[in-house]
Amino acid sequence: MRTYKLTIAYDGSRFRGWQRQPDTDLTIQGILERIISGQVGYEVEVNGSGRTDAGVHASGQTASIVLAGQIEELRFRGELNRQLPEDIRVLDVQLVKNGFHARYKAKGKHYIYTIDRGERPDVFTRKYAWHFPDKLDVEQMRCAAKALTGLHDFTSFTDRDDEKSKVRKVYRIDIEETGSKLMIHYEGTGFLYHMVRILTGTLLDVGTGRVKPEEIRAILEAEDRQRAGQLAPALGLCLREVYYNKER
Amino acid sequence: MRTYKLTIAYDGSRFRGWQRQPDTDLTIQGILERIISGQVGYEVEVNGSGRTDAGVHASGQTASIVLAGQIEELRFRGELNRQLPEDIRVLDVQLVKNGFHARYKAKGKHYIYTIDRGERPDVFTRKYAWHFPDKLDVEQMRCAAKALTGLHDFTSFTDRDDEKSKVRKVYRIDIEETGSKLMIHYEGTGFLYHMVRILTGTLLDVGTGRVKPEEIRAILEAEDRQRAGQLAPALGLCLREVYYNKER
Repeated sequence: MRTYKLTIAYDGSRFRGWQRQPDTDLTIQGILERIISGQVGYEVEVNGSGRTDAGVHASGQTASIVLAGQIEELRFRGELNRQLPEDIRVLDVQLVKNGFHARYKAKGKHYIYTIDRGERPDVFTRKYAWHFPDKLDVEQMRCAAKALTGLHDFTSFTDRDDEKSKVRKVYRIDIEETGSKLMIHYEGTGFLYHMVRILTGTLLDVGTGRVKPEEIRAILEAEDRQRAGQLAPALGLCLREVYYNKER
Repeated sequence: MRTYKLTIAYDGSRFRGWQRQPDTDLTIQGILERIISGQVGYEVEVNGSGRTDAGVHASGQTASIVLAGQIEELRFRGELNRQLPEDIRVLDVQLVKNGFHARYKAKGKHYIYTIDRGERPDVFTRKYAWHFPDKLDVEQMRCAAKALTGLHDFTSFTDRDDEKSKVRKVYRIDIEETGSKLMIHYEGTGFLYHMVRILTGTLLDVGTGRVKPEEIRAILEAEDRQRAGQLAPALGLCLREVYYNKER
């Protein structure tokens, strides 16, 4: 028995999300499981670091698989990539200690949300950025980002009530300006359902002046989804990297 | 009568090229003419700076139109963009002197050819870059680029024999490395049919060692298409900018 860690990139545009579903082949997990199982000749479960929503992209999603025996990593990766559709790519296959699990062992994640501030959506990034042409005060957004960073109960920033604790630690929310794009970097121990997209919607409310940075604390303390901003669309979100402890 | 200069961006992936064709609506010129004519209420011809091939992109194509009277540029642009498909965008509408013609008045062009050197094609740029994972000696390519720069007869670098003169002046061929991408910048007074793509194929032959930079002179002097490299695929090519004299 051998455990492998996969690093995966996908253009989420045409998929119904990461998680396998019985009624459609358009899920990333479903496609990976079908192709990997076909490759090794027995059923393999692909355990992702988390389930990205329909339309969300990844340039560094991770997953773990347990195989009956050892495989040659480079050749295995090549064989998978030959069979995968061009919008899913296995970037890396790595032998790890048995017991490794992409979700349970994850220590943190880095997401990037991209906003296209151009007057008209950039034709080349229209599937990877949210077009938001309204004027934005980026300095105010940075103040709000600072208030959102740290250890908080993020109940106001999720759309689901299925986690025991809504407390999460956000290490970093950095807003990078490049040309007409705004890239918001989120790093944290973990994120609740829809959390990055609601954080983004809230930061944009601050950018447009609808919400003041000083109100962020009250929005957090309210523990009330109604108080936070709108859910930013899936297409702007990309899972950049999943962090693990060095020793696996 | 008023003449306007349009600046246009498009993702060429699903189009049969710039030039209108009687049997398909999938041309950029055809779509622009249909929408502009519908907008003003009479037939308008859209004259591009040149015809990009099927699959070639543009982030700064230009075109000229002659309208019966004056229009409000910003509103006109907004109305066109509302009707255009999301992979074509009018970036700018500018009143110019009567007699301006996007093709005849063009003084030069800037094209970018993007090569994806990654082991596997980047899922996010797979439609905008040629995936070429072979090892490349970029310094050798730069030597060859230098030999191709200047005033030359480019008969060896075109697939068509319909121009009186095949002499063109190439101002600049610069190779920019950014991450796993190679962006080759071409600037010149004008380019022959397929010329940028054949120049790119030839530079890659140099990069892989099949051709030496010192052979470039002989390839040019041969005036023989067989001597130059392969035609690089359309998807990597983007028309970045068209240059005009200041006074129009």
